[in-house]
Amino acid sequence: MRTVTCTAPVNIAVIKYWGKRDTELILPTNDSLSVTLSQDILHSKTTISACKSFEQDRLWLNGKEEDITKNRRMHNCFREARALRKKMEDESSELEPLSTYKVHVCSENNFPTAAGLASSASGLAALVYTLAQLYELQISTSDLSRIARQGSGSACRSLFGGFVAWEMGSASDGSDSKAVQIAPETHWPELEALVCVVSDAKKGTSSTEGMQHTVETSELMQARISTVVPQRMANIKQAILNRDFNTFAEITMRDSNQFHAVCLDTYPPISYLNDTSRAIMRVIHEYNKDGVKAAYTYDAGPNAVIYAPRENMPEIIRLIAHYFPPPATITLSIITRSSHKKVIPIFPAGSVSRLLHTKVDDGPRTLAEDEALLNSQGLPKRLA
Amino acid sequence: MRTVTCTAPVNIAVIKYWGKRDTELILPTNDSLSVTLSQDILHSKTTISACKSFEQDRLWLNGKEEDITKNRRMHNCFREARALRKKMEDESSELEPLSTYKVHVCSENNFPTAAGLASSASGLAALVYTLAQLYELQISTSDLSRIARQGSGSACRSLFGGFVAWEMGSASDGSDSKAVQIAPETHWPELEALVCVVSDAKKGTSSTEGMQHTVETSELMQARISTVVPQRMANIKQAILNRDFNTFAEITMRDSNQFHAVCLDTYPPISYLNDTSRAIMRVIHEYNKDGVKAAYTYDAGPNAVIYAPRENMPEIIRLIAHYFPPPATITLSIITRSSHKKVIPIFPAGSVSRLLHTKVDDGPRTLAEDEALLNSQGLPKRLA
Repeated sequence: MRTVTCTAPVNIAVIKYWGKRDTELILPTNDSLSVTLSQDILHSKTTISACKSFEQDRLWLNGKEEDITKNRRMHNCFREARALRKKMEDESSELEPLSTYKVHVCSENNFPTAAGLASSASGLAALVYTLAQLYELQISTSDLSRIARQGSGSACRSLFGGFVAWEMGSASDGSDSKAVQIAPETHWPELEALVCVVSDAKKGTSSTEGMQHTVETSELMQARISTVVPQRMANIKQAILNRDFNTFAEITMRDSNQFHAVCLDTYPPISYLNDTSRAIMRVIHEYNKDGVKAAYTYDAGPNAVIYAPRENMPEIIRLIAHYFPPPATITLSIITRSSHKKVIPIFPAGSVSRLLHTKVDDGPRTLAEDEALLNSQGLPKRLA
Repeated sequence: MRTVTCTAPVNIAVIKYWGKRDTELILPTNDSLSVTLSQDILHSKTTISACKSFEQDRLWLNGKEEDITKNRRMHNCFREARALRKKMEDESSELEPLSTYKVHVCSENNFPTAAGLASSASGLAALVYTLAQLYELQISTSDLSRIARQGSGSACRSLFGGFVAWEMGSASDGSDSKAVQIAPETHWPELEALVCVVSDAKKGTSSTEGMQHTVETSELMQARISTVVPQRMANIKQAILNRDFNTFAEITMRDSNQFHAVCLDTYPPISYLNDTSRAIMRVIHEYNKDGVKAAYTYDAGPNAVIYAPRENMPEIIRLIAHYFPPPATITLSIITRSSHKKVIPIFPAGSVSRLLHTKVDDGPRTLAEDEALLNSQGLPKRLA
């Protein structure tokens, strides 16, 4: 039995991916660009064991077994990785025929789904990266990113640390739609991130579904794709290379807003921001009145990610904690004829339930054997 | 002393006016189209007295005297109307030289500003219409709308009943930027409106200021102006003429959403919708699942206006009352060391404080003498 364990990081886009031109191959309508956040704080961890004696492919996600054959996109990643391994085995008879072995996969996020943070990017990146290590694929990270892309579009960007572009490409087979590193994490170590988890009970539109509704119905989307994003990509790459926070911040905020604008221009409209999200935006713009000190961005949910130079972070944390105090438990006596009384949690107008302070960091890591999620029988050490 | 009293209605746009190409003459960046709501429910009322013995122009707005010379846009309307009167007097010596008399103006809205309903359109329309009656101007309503436009852009649309387009025009002097009636109020009597006043403490960006920020900074605005609105104007006019509620409703909702999308694409972004506004949108889309029965639209604030055929209104009113119950007074015991207790009003997540059920109706009305807001001395009968 061969077993490999890896972690992969979360990435948060500053130029947003929203819309596919090919939903099967996951080819996007525009380039995007993200920052890789530290795995010390947020990561997906995957162990894969391959063994001649395994009878079927098995998958445990966050401690729960799932039917691997029903997950078509994950299945595509396996197919691609196995085909590459098969080719290597065909060329060298000394290699163990791992491509013919069934695998057991166990994957976990170190953050609760309830935190409202997208886990598909780090999850699929961890899977594909672990497969590449298991099969000892002789492949560049950009080439590997084409496989991860077919599992979850933005997963391709989680294969690099630092600042990462996903080039949309133009080939119809997706061969040139891949991630490239614009600058490593060491390039701009002062840049840090604060994830503000916004309390919200509502379940939003899934991004897979939502983005195609935008492509189909938003009459403003074409202008974004054809004119705005290409210009912003060029400008923000230059800003990153120059460590020009002002330009980086303005483009980041404008692109977050435009992404949510085309969501609102979708029919029926899609809303991910809530009143707290918008209040955080106002606070940041107010804070930036005398010079740009922080930049917000929002993915397909109400949580804010604030990018800022390290020196501003203590002030920003105090600011958010002050304006968006965490929920309190309150005794509520409603004046009615029955006059009942109960203790319920009340979310004050605008509350942030959790703050995660993190930084720009490296790409996927391979861990030591004793960090494996599967035991020597290839079964999860922990179940939900 | 000559005294005239008139009322003018509120209009709610279905194709939104947002952006000026000339801020002095108030020339818009695109055509817009609105529905005139009944003055029985919402109106601005204006009395103007002109008298040889008045020493200066005086103005009372909602019972408070204001400096008429400081209100440049209102001043422009006076200048234009007086010039037209002057021309008539020059041509006929029998006419009383009213253009040389000072005037007293008293104007009131029958709805509180706190209701969050724009009053500048009905207010300026009432002023200009009353001036036209006072001076007995021989002028078409469309020509008069060019004067009202210079007081407040959307005021030009409140000079007609029914369904009204504001044609942006192309002349640099604004001579062809005017309102025209697409269909009178009698054309589609089944169409009614429900104004949902959404509780909101926040004060938003003024529309005068906000729209120019959008023109200057939104990278999606040009697509809206050049492509989307011209097509929508043609389609919604046809839908109105055909009394085709499905098409009317879809264009109305799409255009409201796109207006708020370009607000969000403005930098810094502008937000007028709050969580309650967005929840009402979701309820309407859910209600429309098996056929379009209602259409929402939002101006520069959180209040919804719902257009629907009369037969659906009872159901819609029950729906809104059910999901957005009005605020309740609640005794709140916060668990702290000091353990204090107080009674405060609590707005449940999503509350509508007031519902106004109204219909499509006529343009400005001239009232009888005893309805005047000024007494025989030309002073307000009521002060704030």
